[in-house]
Amino acid sequence: MPGPLALALDFGGTKLETALIDSDGALVPGSRHRRPTGPAATSDELAARVAEAIRASLDAMPVGAALAGAGIGAAGPVDLAEGTVSPLNVPAWRGYPLAGLVSSLVPGVPVTLRIDGLCIALAEHWIGAGQGAGNFLGMIVSTGVGGGLLLGGRAAPGTTGNGGHIGHVEVGGHDEPCACGGRGCLEAIASGPNSVAWARRHGFTGATGEDLAAAYAAGDAVARAAVERAGTALGRTIGSAANLVDLDRVAIGGGFSRVSPDLLEIARRALADRSDFGFVRRVEIVASALSDEGPLIGAGALVHRPDRI
Amino acid sequence: MPGPLALALDFGGTKLETALIDSDGALVPGSRHRRPTGPAATSDELAARVAEAIRASLDAMPVGAALAGAGIGAAGPVDLAEGTVSPLNVPAWRGYPLAGLVSSLVPGVPVTLRIDGLCIALAEHWIGAGQGAGNFLGMIVSTGVGGGLLLGGRAAPGTTGNGGHIGHVEVGGHDEPCACGGRGCLEAIASGPNSVAWARRHGFTGATGEDLAAAYAAGDAVARAAVERAGTALGRTIGSAANLVDLDRVAIGGGFSRVSPDLLEIARRALADRSDFGFVRRVEIVASALSDEGPLIGAGALVHRPDRI
Repeated sequence: MPGPLALALDFGGTKLETALIDSDGALVPGSRHRRPTGPAATSDELAARVAEAIRASLDAMPVGAALAGAGIGAAGPVDLAEGTVSPLNVPAWRGYPLAGLVSSLVPGVPVTLRIDGLCIALAEHWIGAGQGAGNFLGMIVSTGVGGGLLLGGRAAPGTTGNGGHIGHVEVGGHDEPCACGGRGCLEAIASGPNSVAWARRHGFTGATGEDLAAAYAAGDAVARAAVERAGTALGRTIGSAANLVDLDRVAIGGGFSRVSPDLLEIARRALADRSDFGFVRRVEIVASALSDEGPLIGAGALVHRPDRI
Repeated sequence: MPGPLALALDFGGTKLETALIDSDGALVPGSRHRRPTGPAATSDELAARVAEAIRASLDAMPVGAALAGAGIGAAGPVDLAEGTVSPLNVPAWRGYPLAGLVSSLVPGVPVTLRIDGLCIALAEHWIGAGQGAGNFLGMIVSTGVGGGLLLGGRAAPGTTGNGGHIGHVEVGGHDEPCACGGRGCLEAIASGPNSVAWARRHGFTGATGEDLAAAYAAGDAVARAAVERAGTALGRTIGSAANLVDLDRVAIGGGFSRVSPDLLEIARRALADRSDFGFVRRVEIVASALSDEGPLIGAGALVHRPDRI
């Protein structure tokens, strides 16, 4: 007899994914399904794709298994008080009642919605690089820079559910315009696309984070300066966060976090250079221990680890 | 028959104060006592002054009153795991067991130690401008810039107890060196002395925050630019904090926060200009509702409001 399962939905700016997650954080084989999202889809199309993927995942339920609940991780902003989502890159959904949609697809099953950055942090804390850390920040450095914050081993409380937006903490000495409307935010500096754009302004001819990684590995001076710039901004921002919330550990994942194994070491050095305070310098900066299943596992944690939310 | 009382100790970089606090957050008349601290005092002198002030406060105990506990707010850094303090401007105390000292002076009475910024935030939340706010940041803008953070109506958890250091969150576009070892921190920009120093570099001839306030009120262009600069940095930093911890309200006190009634309005405008995110723009920025009794009231809250810590 299998243990209770969670239906997990990760709703992002380019795709949505669903899967069944067991109580150890493992995906049920054959249960993972994906559909596109993006700026072109209508609201009805998005809802239909959510329904298709959920039905396909439910078809993979083992005989005799029970569904304990459904967990949703959604691209922000979210509004937990209303149960709605307004994913930045999915303009068809503004204040969309995603929790209600999922509830209608699995009648009688409890549904829990949280922002995707928090789900990833919950997954790291459950079975990844955040295990055992009291005050833990999970970060994603990719097309954007996102994150999720656990304090005292639990999701940091918040009225709207949008905490953990480390990508929109400002970095001293920087004034680059940011997609959030601000200037000098970490995301405006250290995301993959913004790092590549900076390198191109300094003569780099590649187009992608992968190009930048290859050039860095080959010793290209501009690529090395671009990675130094991103890693330094990461370390300084972690320092700001540590001052505010007394962090124990930060785990960094996402495609651009693997631009070079040096990136995290640069961030560690920047953190140490940035502060004389022992409580800031002590923060551990480690690599994510999750695969690309992280967001789904985190959505499953909303069901299997209610003590953490 | 009076209710149970708290013995409160506020230990700062220039002075220490003690008082008895009742269960409504009021000081018992005649119980407030003060002694100097500072860089020149020896460790034994400091301990003797703490003991003198505590004994003087205890002499004001009303007949029949009982002491429910002792609360200590101390200038940071602190180490809650060890129960020690290392106040930046009191070099004689590094890793000093202040909780143990107080415990020896009131045998059998429970003693609770927290950083002073948190105590001030607890006082605001208890009887001041933070009442009813779930995620609340109490800020002090004075010789330095400090703060304390409550999330979900309680002190944000932390291993070392040093969270809430909003003064050492960096501000985009700024690179001024900071006393913490970093650059571009809010304190390096917006504290009273650093605002005055900036104005002097731009031709202001006054020497104090009071001089700057008078010049601002008289319409002096450099003074107005200095206040604009400080208020803008405050608003931008509150934006960074709101992104990270989904703030509901921020209350700002401290001597330099009163440089002009315009300061908070400038901060509000900077916050609105800084972010398109509704969850950031919604943060309320209000003036502190506490007198200079705030730190003592907050130390009393450690005893009277254990549900908040």
